[in-house]
Amino acid sequence: MTRIDLYDTTLRDGAQAEGISYSVRDKLHIAERLDALGLHYIEGGWPGSNPKDAEFFRQAKRLPWRNAQLAAFGSTRRAAHAAKDPNLRALLAAETRVVTIFGKTWDLHVRNVLGISLQDNLRLIEDSVRFLKRHGRTVIYDAEHFFDGYKANRTYALKSLEAAAQGGADTIVFCDTNGGSLPEEVTRLIADAKRGLSVPLGIHTHNDSDLAVATSIAAVAAGCRQVQGTINGYGERCGNANLVSLIAVLQLKMGYHCVPEEKLKELTPVAHYVAEISNVSLPTNRPFVGASAFAHKGGVHVNAVMKDPQTYEHLDPATVGNQRRVLVSELSGRSSLVLKAQELALDLSKETPAAKRLLKLLQQLEHEGYHFEAAEGSLQLLLKRQLEHLKPFFTLEGFRIMIEKHDHKLVSEATITLRVNGVLEQTAAEGHGPVNALDNAIRKALRQFYPRLAEMHLSDFKVRVLDEKAGTAAKVRVLIESRDQEASWGTIGVSENIIEASWQALVDSVEYKLLKDQKSDVRGRRSVKATRRPRARSDRS
Amino acid sequence: MTRIDLYDTTLRDGAQAEGISYSVRDKLHIAERLDALGLHYIEGGWPGSNPKDAEFFRQAKRLPWRNAQLAAFGSTRRAAHAAKDPNLRALLAAETRVVTIFGKTWDLHVRNVLGISLQDNLRLIEDSVRFLKRHGRTVIYDAEHFFDGYKANRTYALKSLEAAAQGGADTIVFCDTNGGSLPEEVTRLIADAKRGLSVPLGIHTHNDSDLAVATSIAAVAAGCRQVQGTINGYGERCGNANLVSLIAVLQLKMGYHCVPEEKLKELTPVAHYVAEISNVSLPTNRPFVGASAFAHKGGVHVNAVMKDPQTYEHLDPATVGNQRRVLVSELSGRSSLVLKAQELALDLSKETPAAKRLLKLLQQLEHEGYHFEAAEGSLQLLLKRQLEHLKPFFTLEGFRIMIEKHDHKLVSEATITLRVNGVLEQTAAEGHGPVNALDNAIRKALRQFYPRLAEMHLSDFKVRVLDEKAGTAAKVRVLIESRDQEASWGTIGVSENIIEASWQALVDSVEYKLLKDQKSDVRGRRSVKATRRPRARSDRS
Repeated sequence: MTRIDLYDTTLRDGAQAEGISYSVRDKLHIAERLDALGLHYIEGGWPGSNPKDAEFFRQAKRLPWRNAQLAAFGSTRRAAHAAKDPNLRALLAAETRVVTIFGKTWDLHVRNVLGISLQDNLRLIEDSVRFLKRHGRTVIYDAEHFFDGYKANRTYALKSLEAAAQGGADTIVFCDTNGGSLPEEVTRLIADAKRGLSVPLGIHTHNDSDLAVATSIAAVAAGCRQVQGTINGYGERCGNANLVSLIAVLQLKMGYHCVPEEKLKELTPVAHYVAEISNVSLPTNRPFVGASAFAHKGGVHVNAVMKDPQTYEHLDPATVGNQRRVLVSELSGRSSLVLKAQELALDLSKETPAAKRLLKLLQQLEHEGYHFEAAEGSLQLLLKRQLEHLKPFFTLEGFRIMIEKHDHKLVSEATITLRVNGVLEQTAAEGHGPVNALDNAIRKALRQFYPRLAEMHLSDFKVRVLDEKAGTAAKVRVLIESRDQEASWGTIGVSENIIEASWQALVDSVEYKLLKDQKSDVRGRRSVKATRRPRARSDRS
Repeated sequence: MTRIDLYDTTLRDGAQAEGISYSVRDKLHIAERLDALGLHYIEGGWPGSNPKDAEFFRQAKRLPWRNAQLAAFGSTRRAAHAAKDPNLRALLAAETRVVTIFGKTWDLHVRNVLGISLQDNLRLIEDSVRFLKRHGRTVIYDAEHFFDGYKANRTYALKSLEAAAQGGADTIVFCDTNGGSLPEEVTRLIADAKRGLSVPLGIHTHNDSDLAVATSIAAVAAGCRQVQGTINGYGERCGNANLVSLIAVLQLKMGYHCVPEEKLKELTPVAHYVAEISNVSLPTNRPFVGASAFAHKGGVHVNAVMKDPQTYEHLDPATVGNQRRVLVSELSGRSSLVLKAQELALDLSKETPAAKRLLKLLQQLEHEGYHFEAAEGSLQLLLKRQLEHLKPFFTLEGFRIMIEKHDHKLVSEATITLRVNGVLEQTAAEGHGPVNALDNAIRKALRQFYPRLAEMHLSDFKVRVLDEKAGTAAKVRVLIESRDQEASWGTIGVSENIIEASWQALVDSVEYKLLKDQKSDVRGRRSVKATRRPRARSDRS
């Protein structure tokens, strides 16, 4: 099977999408997940263009890379000498094995944007590539606007590729930067261009003509062996070629090898994960991975699919980690629920009434807007509460939050009354906002009972509006990520009231920590009896 | 120029999309708009399958059709005799000039879904077409699953097409019903099939492989002269081929004639109109017609586009009724700002101290977490406040919000004191949460001064945590989208306190509306002096 190298640029080109802005932490999370998926190259950013990207490369070095090579992105030199070019120096400073630089192929750009002679541009392409090669980098050369350039001035466009090859480029990538090319043109132009080149070839397209996946597969058929794109097709204007679709099409329909076979079922969770971090909702009709991608509505279709799924499904949804849905009468994965329970060492088999009841409850909650994929902490608590009759660590009597703005000063204060093992605890705390005040008040009320709560802090807090049309009266979903020294866990709350949703997620976050410690205390006592310390456990008995 | 007939099935296949459900009125509205756009066929529904569709056909007869022919959709007969088949009778009862019927091409479907012999299926295809022809209809035959059927049993698939031709079909349409085919297959299979046919050909594809536009244009290149699809690609699972993209690609890039040249600029408004009626928001990155389709963010791109738009635009956005937008973000520079000011008819040139000061202010705000590319309303207000010394429409004296949870009941109440032209207004309101309560209180306090605020509502509310490490004490960014009958606008607020951030975004949202109306009032008064109505303006002077 011919291997196709996947080159992801979600962190650079994807971040050019309107409305997307990644923190360094976001980028690290995404990079780790894409590495695990088995992608071959992950472009981390343009270190010469902004300090955030440079910081990413500093931190990314410490990640335990398993599959992917990290690539830094930049332009060919602008300065007279490569060694003095700040952009090329920033690329070297990123200390990646792979460097990708783009150069101008289109004479219009050379003249009107760079404002230099055609000859000079060829020189700086060759120079820049050679400079990076001399510093031991694998160099990928992105021929910006290749197709437009070829159509405007074929001879010059081809010369620019030769310059990159002369400089020693390891791969030359044809870019449909403006996204205006048709598959038939891509096939024809690459066939012509590759005659003069003995360098491995790649393709990078944009979706401005709604054809990015098609132009990419046309280029692969024409001989390109590296495919650049972004998860979910994020990117400037109409986005880049969608790597998720491309992996599925290339591997499942065209017989190329992209990722290990068993990774294909990661496509759906990865697409949703990256959407979540990008704080963008994934359109439900997204090919392969959308919630509706294998949803059947019409009666004719539903009937036929029940007889034989291939009647209205082009592939088995499980292959890409998605699932069939029958709209109205929802049928879903009891087996995945059983699998999850096993993971937690909970006793649940597929045929029990408990499994049926749990599945119904989960479906009900998901219908209300809960989304447990990003909130495993809450899912675990839910299963344990249902299957093991988990006793709560505390109960709420009531809380009150006051936010007052006057003379440009804003004060947020929460008072709370909790009951722990029959003991009533009432306290109050201020905060930077209502949720922070509530968070502070809970911890203050609980700390004498459970001192180890001091080890934990909230590391992420996300709010998403579910029913956008309802404006400020809409249902909101709050996702909280918490961590202590050893672990991190996600919890969730859903309500029309952001305070109530935050409360649910905060309670789960605290209970998860207490439950986790309870278990590790038990384990700890078994293995190292001598080193027993006084623990929160005793407060509870 | 070769003419391509456009066949829209938004009202039938589009309505199969998860979450879409049209009333008869919705359907009539959409049909009128698509007729005006110059489409050739509009499929109104399946009259045999539900009474709503039959009602649509009754009412649609009265519309003043200018360009399109209305088509009724149904299946080949199931009953022993065509004349007694309820489905075919319902098709005739719809009284459309055009009838489209689908038949089975794939032997698997004939055997396992219809449960009849292969021979019988051929007979009922031919019969059903002939019956409709005898009743004077133009008959379009949809060969369901043509490509899958061909791959499973080529001989039989081709025979089924011959049966339709024998029956007298006016057009035979190759359907990629499951959306699993590749462009290359479409080209090859149609080339083979058309050898035996002298009937005009059409194509109908689905987007399950992210290739629906590509397979459609491949079919046109292979000789199909009718293209079926839906506006915005609505449809079951991953949707149908997007007619909006197809019109643009076929006419602007491939030189076919689809709609009168002057209608192309209707593509953007039509796409948004149909999205609005479908109650679905149009993804901003939608090719040709999305709000981001010609939006430029990176500094390099913005600079180049200012010199020459074709450097990063595959076509002039005005051609399809869209427009260029410059996103002002951390990635861009002073030229973007100047361009944005020009867009707003504000006086700002690149070299003035005002431009430098504004840029510094913007960079400072973005550093603090503001993100104006998603909040053009706030950006406009900011520029106008800075450059035109905009007078505020009201000032805040103070507000207080109380959220109380007790006995599982949660109450949110806001009290607010505002000053409008010296008049003090104090009021209180409840809400589904603190922000909704505040929103309600502001509107209640202002409505006597500015009655037109009643026209506006909040259509989206997004919250993003900026500094995740800080947990619930983190800075949050609130983005609000508001709309009235004519427009929508985004506003932003940033603070460690979600209530303060929401307050900022709410104030901008209201001020934007008031400023917009002020301007349109002035315009209105200039042009139609006689029809002046009492207006909010008077409250302010």
